[in-house]
Amino acid sequence: MSHKAHPLDPLSAQEIDTIATLVKSCIKEKVLFRVITLVEPAKKELISFLDAEHSGSAAPHVTRKAMVHAYIGKAFHEIFVNVDKTEIISHEILRGKHSHVDAAYMAQVEDACLQDDKVQAEIKALELPEGALVIVEPWTYATDGMNDMNSRITMCWFYMRLCDHKDASYYAYPLDIVAEVSDIFKVLKVYRLATGASPTTSATDEARPFDQRKIHASSEYHPDLFNEQRTTTKPLLIDQPQGPSFEISGNSIAWEKWTMRLGFNYREGMTLHDIRYDNQSLFYRLSLSEMFVPYGDPRAPYPRKGAFDLGNDGAGVNANNLKLGCDCLGHIKYFNFWHTTSNGEPLQMPNVVCCHEQDDGILWKHTNFRTGNAVVTRSRLLVLQTIITVSNYEYVFIFYFGQDASIHYEVRATGILSTAPIDIGKQVPYGTVVAPGVLAPYHQHLFCLRIDPALDGHNNSFVVEDSVAMPYPDASNPFGVGYTTQSSIVEQEQGLDLDHTKNRTFKLINEKKRNSITGTPIGFKLLPYYSQPILAHPSSFHARRSEFGAHAVWVTRYRDSELYAAGTHTLQSLGGEGIASWITSRKGSEEANVRDEDIVVWHTFGSTHNPRVEDWPVMPCEKMVVGLKPVNFFEKNPGLDVRVSTQRENQSVLVGEKDPGKVQKENKKSKL
Amino acid sequence: MSHKAHPLDPLSAQEIDTIATLVKSCIKEKVLFRVITLVEPAKKELISFLDAEHSGSAAPHVTRKAMVHAYIGKAFHEIFVNVDKTEIISHEILRGKHSHVDAAYMAQVEDACLQDDKVQAEIKALELPEGALVIVEPWTYATDGMNDMNSRITMCWFYMRLCDHKDASYYAYPLDIVAEVSDIFKVLKVYRLATGASPTTSATDEARPFDQRKIHASSEYHPDLFNEQRTTTKPLLIDQPQGPSFEISGNSIAWEKWTMRLGFNYREGMTLHDIRYDNQSLFYRLSLSEMFVPYGDPRAPYPRKGAFDLGNDGAGVNANNLKLGCDCLGHIKYFNFWHTTSNGEPLQMPNVVCCHEQDDGILWKHTNFRTGNAVVTRSRLLVLQTIITVSNYEYVFIFYFGQDASIHYEVRATGILSTAPIDIGKQVPYGTVVAPGVLAPYHQHLFCLRIDPALDGHNNSFVVEDSVAMPYPDASNPFGVGYTTQSSIVEQEQGLDLDHTKNRTFKLINEKKRNSITGTPIGFKLLPYYSQPILAHPSSFHARRSEFGAHAVWVTRYRDSELYAAGTHTLQSLGGEGIASWITSRKGSEEANVRDEDIVVWHTFGSTHNPRVEDWPVMPCEKMVVGLKPVNFFEKNPGLDVRVSTQRENQSVLVGEKDPGKVQKENKKSKL
Repeated sequence: MSHKAHPLDPLSAQEIDTIATLVKSCIKEKVLFRVITLVEPAKKELISFLDAEHSGSAAPHVTRKAMVHAYIGKAFHEIFVNVDKTEIISHEILRGKHSHVDAAYMAQVEDACLQDDKVQAEIKALELPEGALVIVEPWTYATDGMNDMNSRITMCWFYMRLCDHKDASYYAYPLDIVAEVSDIFKVLKVYRLATGASPTTSATDEARPFDQRKIHASSEYHPDLFNEQRTTTKPLLIDQPQGPSFEISGNSIAWEKWTMRLGFNYREGMTLHDIRYDNQSLFYRLSLSEMFVPYGDPRAPYPRKGAFDLGNDGAGVNANNLKLGCDCLGHIKYFNFWHTTSNGEPLQMPNVVCCHEQDDGILWKHTNFRTGNAVVTRSRLLVLQTIITVSNYEYVFIFYFGQDASIHYEVRATGILSTAPIDIGKQVPYGTVVAPGVLAPYHQHLFCLRIDPALDGHNNSFVVEDSVAMPYPDASNPFGVGYTTQSSIVEQEQGLDLDHTKNRTFKLINEKKRNSITGTPIGFKLLPYYSQPILAHPSSFHARRSEFGAHAVWVTRYRDSELYAAGTHTLQSLGGEGIASWITSRKGSEEANVRDEDIVVWHTFGSTHNPRVEDWPVMPCEKMVVGLKPVNFFEKNPGLDVRVSTQRENQSVLVGEKDPGKVQKENKKSKL
Repeated sequence: MSHKAHPLDPLSAQEIDTIATLVKSCIKEKVLFRVITLVEPAKKELISFLDAEHSGSAAPHVTRKAMVHAYIGKAFHEIFVNVDKTEIISHEILRGKHSHVDAAYMAQVEDACLQDDKVQAEIKALELPEGALVIVEPWTYATDGMNDMNSRITMCWFYMRLCDHKDASYYAYPLDIVAEVSDIFKVLKVYRLATGASPTTSATDEARPFDQRKIHASSEYHPDLFNEQRTTTKPLLIDQPQGPSFEISGNSIAWEKWTMRLGFNYREGMTLHDIRYDNQSLFYRLSLSEMFVPYGDPRAPYPRKGAFDLGNDGAGVNANNLKLGCDCLGHIKYFNFWHTTSNGEPLQMPNVVCCHEQDDGILWKHTNFRTGNAVVTRSRLLVLQTIITVSNYEYVFIFYFGQDASIHYEVRATGILSTAPIDIGKQVPYGTVVAPGVLAPYHQHLFCLRIDPALDGHNNSFVVEDSVAMPYPDASNPFGVGYTTQSSIVEQEQGLDLDHTKNRTFKLINEKKRNSITGTPIGFKLLPYYSQPILAHPSSFHARRSEFGAHAVWVTRYRDSELYAAGTHTLQSLGGEGIASWITSRKGSEEANVRDEDIVVWHTFGSTHNPRVEDWPVMPCEKMVVGLKPVNFFEKNPGLDVRVSTQRENQSVLVGEKDPGKVQKENKKSKL
């Protein structure tokens, strides 16, 4: 970028190049870069900058810092760089830790696996159909306590493609062999998977040729491979004759009364900063902190399926290049960011975030029944969307900003189910048979949204409010219909649970700022997504590694280093380094106080995904939505001033009764 | 309608006229018609008709029957008519019951109230500001056990308007008097309301002049009355160059693979019938059965605020005349139905249901990371919307049909909060002060969606399925990560509760039909909306009258007479006539069996609405969404054949980086 970088702007191509050159100049060995990324300024420093920026006074200089992850030989290096001065601040080898997944590394694993004689012997023993192409799908190893934890291991699951088409879905043919590959690309073990109804949890070495009855043609999703394309859906276009309502400057977005700043990094992908409505500060930072996908099949080695799609894979590096008219409809602004190649060259990530508007039906309406006069406004949303692909699955992450000062965060899960082989005619109680010989095992998707509030200041409090019936019988409640709210302010860091039976409401408030109308502290409420906490036993590695999965809501005191709910280095992590551990380490101390402090709220939500056959061969989006809404923050409905809807502006078209399929064109022109 | 009526077609104008003439010819006294409405055919009879209709064979004749509600003097008459033969089938006086609310009657109550000397004396004692116009808002009387239950009583709440504009919001000035009016329009009582923080639940007679400090200008929603209209929202139009994708014939709707029949009646408003996907029967009937709005202010007479907006008011008679480009955007088909005047003349209800399409983002997507090829489809929805106004509140009721065979039912609550007076500077624990002197009391909105399934036949079963961790430690679960589902089929009628901690899933299944892929019974699952059950004490009139509020899910055996979850006549009902009473009456008998029987599932959901000041002076929509999704019903993703999205078809516009506010027009023409 040619303009002066904002402290929150991700690194530019030039900055990445400069940093890589610096690192290479200091290290004589071959450096395999994994990431060169902005280190966001310390909050204290950034607040000074933002305060100055908003007040129009001279902004203090904020040093731009970068973090470099690189492998030099087998050692995982972490280097911090002062970008302004082009100098290294610190340089450390992270022993016992692993970097996030490297596509090039995984490709090497695949090759090594396929070239291994033991593997080839197992493949041969499968007696696959003529023309079968075996495909190895390498997965990070979810710690199960059965291997040395310091060495990186990759689990290789086997599939095949029977069709020449390169986009034929190999997930339709899971094979019943598995291999473990070391970090020097050596196949450590090859063995057979349990594929029957038997409760055995051990893999078997019994040779079983591929069952020809599994061959089927109904598991393709690519339009080249089936000819059922429906032709009934007629085009629906978004026309914005005056262009979009947003204004973009660099990574700063202004829309209606909202302003915010977009960030992007290799790990969290899209992040949002300094979110204000009508010049009032609401949130310092919103981000997806982590996600975990633990599988529920208890048979070894399936407990090794447990993916941290942010910590292990990276929502940024796996972000899709979004396509106009495909992923997004209307007037679309795309944002590009820069990643790095393993040689340290800047690598553009184009169109990884899209920004557009959407109509959302009615915002508010009232008809005065005495006059018959209706006043109706339509709701317009600002949409910020990013989509990631992590092997088989896709996740769509969307922030919606409303004219009523609400924010909604939506996750859509789509893509292809991870599959495992199962014998024809068999069933297991922890999976669904979705095609002949194809088991889609039960699993959970656990997301953790990190909410760093700044409700008219950085010191905020967190309230748990239940709606409770008044005592009855009681003089204060003679008819038994009375109810009130019972609130408690959370004093110390903790995890909390949802309770819809009490209408449990979680509020972020600023105790020092009172609403002039209601007389109560200004606040926002969290509208949680109701879902099941992690099912894995608390002593299991799955649960210990994804501490955030145990409760739906967590409150912690802000710390610059605490962005990732399952800890910083999740790949083959051993547990004990996530949100619950932080809380335990400070429990009872002054450091754990969260009342009228700079706090962070974390919401864990997701789905217990027991697949349906309707999720196959590609899954229609499953939506999960979390909301943030003002509650006695403003003095009235913030969307009250949205213009009343008119046909003059909205030019809709009446579909005639006589000729229902056809449009009465003349109506398009009539202005009501 | 000139074409032959379908058995589910609401009565035509001609039929209403014929029936009214018949009734008037048989009764010599003055008949005050309340409703003339279709009696839907008995299910057994209708099934024969629908089966013949779908198989293309000769459909049996189904007698059209109508129900007439009318007052003759003070007596409430119910008359059933054979429409085909123009003859009365039965004629009964419903003693102790009341018809739904009559706007003309309520207007008479208002007049009587304002003309009453005691009322005028109380108004005078208020010493209202010059130019104040007192407005009486009559409410149905929610039984509280304090009055004779046979006589109809109307509660009159008082407001004032200070401004000449007829759409000035009088809810901004609740006055602290209340009157009770009899069914012969006699004011029975006038008294003062409790308006302070005192825990007294009795009204007071102390004279208190209007507090001038309550006068304010910030409670207007009508655009004539405030000049803050934002100008930042640029137009967003829906362009469907080939017209909509649906086809309408009479009240039959075909869209994508869906077919269904729209019904409409004075009470439930929009109903849906005979819902099929790809020619497979899914649901016999979907309808909002009832809704109840109990208020939580314990002070007499506020416990009399408890509104059955369907049973007392009618979602049909209160349906809005929807406006093109205002309530609906795009290519809109409107449906009109016929009601009746008090004289029995047909009264058209225009545009009470709108039908249109909506883009809903991504339906499914997958990128093959090995080829980089992305396949993405967009989700199109069919939207059927109706909006009702019940005094201060508006409700938007929407069915969404998806290309993946999902159905979502959305309720949006909007409009104006019901208000009560409160002294300046006071607070109460069961309400929010939203403007000077204006209390918005806590209340609940409890909706009951009636789901009558016909999953490949009318005999269905209901399953409760929890996701549960496998025992640990245990040989079957050595790593502690295994989980399975535990299912139980509901054998007898009952109410059931939600439990997100168990991922509790409610499935409708057909035990006799197995999915050829999964080997399990075909089914649909209910995606409930998590909300709090009724807070009123079980022995209160609120709870006894709205039995459906006690549980989130109910399963009953189908009966033609059981459409309304709080009973047939809710106005001043005494309880004991809703869904729990039906279940109790049959408990343990063969009649209560619901396994592999013709069953009905009822989902109670809603909101505990503790108002925010942001809900004032008009409330931005609060959304509640319930879903129905196939679960191992089809053999694969029903939306797999949706056409892949392309820019060629979707013609979106790239917003340029250089000139962010402006559209790069040339992009509109480029076909990718």
